[in-house]
Amino acid sequence: MKPIFNLSLYLVLDPDLCGGEQGMVATALAALAAVAGGVTIVQLRAPKWKKRQWVSAAFALKAALDPLNIPLIINDHIDVALLVDAAGVHVGQQDIAPEMARQLIGPNKILGLSTSNAGQMAAVPLDIVDYIGVGPVFATGTKLDASPVIGLEEFALLMQIKSLPAVAIGGIGLGRVAALRAAGADGVAVVSAICGQANPQQAAQALRLEGEISDV
Amino acid sequence: MKPIFNLSLYLVLDPDLCGGEQGMVATALAALAAVAGGVTIVQLRAPKWKKRQWVSAAFALKAALDPLNIPLIINDHIDVALLVDAAGVHVGQQDIAPEMARQLIGPNKILGLSTSNAGQMAAVPLDIVDYIGVGPVFATGTKLDASPVIGLEEFALLMQIKSLPAVAIGGIGLGRVAALRAAGADGVAVVSAICGQANPQQAAQALRLEGEISDV
Repeated sequence: MKPIFNLSLYLVLDPDLCGGEQGMVATALAALAAVAGGVTIVQLRAPKWKKRQWVSAAFALKAALDPLNIPLIINDHIDVALLVDAAGVHVGQQDIAPEMARQLIGPNKILGLSTSNAGQMAAVPLDIVDYIGVGPVFATGTKLDASPVIGLEEFALLMQIKSLPAVAIGGIGLGRVAALRAAGADGVAVVSAICGQANPQQAAQALRLEGEISDV
Repeated sequence: MKPIFNLSLYLVLDPDLCGGEQGMVATALAALAAVAGGVTIVQLRAPKWKKRQWVSAAFALKAALDPLNIPLIINDHIDVALLVDAAGVHVGQQDIAPEMARQLIGPNKILGLSTSNAGQMAAVPLDIVDYIGVGPVFATGTKLDASPVIGLEEFALLMQIKSLPAVAIGGIGLGRVAALRAAGADGVAVVSAICGQANPQQAAQALRLEGEISDV
């Protein structure tokens, strides 16, 4: 059965920002422990890493997240996801195509796809993909090969044509969550707004609270 | 059933040196067409590529190689190998560990592992790995993260302790093949000695001939 997932606060763990494997596990656990609700889903993304390190970190994260029922999503590397039995996989437009990714992971894993414009959103195979990432909404320093910035106004238009749950990504931090949720995002994905923050628990709680307010 | 493989002349295709996907297919086909025997096994290695491009090139190479019964080996990305049903996978010391790679590919695929010293060779799980790459024997410009150069003398010592078929790699070109085979290598792996050569067919034939002489 496919795991239930909640995109509200989607933490993308970057080892450079999070202090490597140990830092990522610690950050994820802290960001989950927020009293008023923390991150709801976690992705591992380490574009500079070799795969032996990916596997090690993915096993460590899975061991930390499974007891809390928080899905672990593996970016790009489906072989790593299969090995550690992750909850799902996230692919970009230049990664393995969604149809092929689904073929590899089977029906019971979550599959996310990055999109950055209306054309890419219209091309998403709705019976294959479970959620889309939409971005970068704002300028970001944490993904060097990102597409052109969308902006909040265009993002709101994209949310009106979406056919799948959508998480906003790119330059998102405190003060930007409410507007994105109001524009129609089902959640926000953050990297540096939690990774590398002095208090990841507090950071997660504040982001989550800002999102919840807009849900009312 | 696991495909039979012959390491005699192992062509590693690099898109930068081979003119991208089309150039790689053309090079492989030319290098196979040598009258006196050409390359015997082909690996795709494209560390700079995103995976959608890997998949496209791997399908194209497989279509070209299958009719000739030449095994296609995919470097590092086991997800790509599974998708295109490649003959095998090659992993390095920092890639997915051989035991885990075997778990993903099952018993009927070829599994190769890079080694560069006696300690790494002694640690190879013999019931899991099918062949080892040993190198870099000589200095190479085509693999930027290569280990320290072994040299021919040390390579000959390593060949005396090997327990699996071994292919020499690293800086190998015409004039170096006979000595490596005489030292005990079951074959030689080349990149630039065929990729980017004006006449890949002739280059492959000359390399193969030099290897065969040492077999007598």
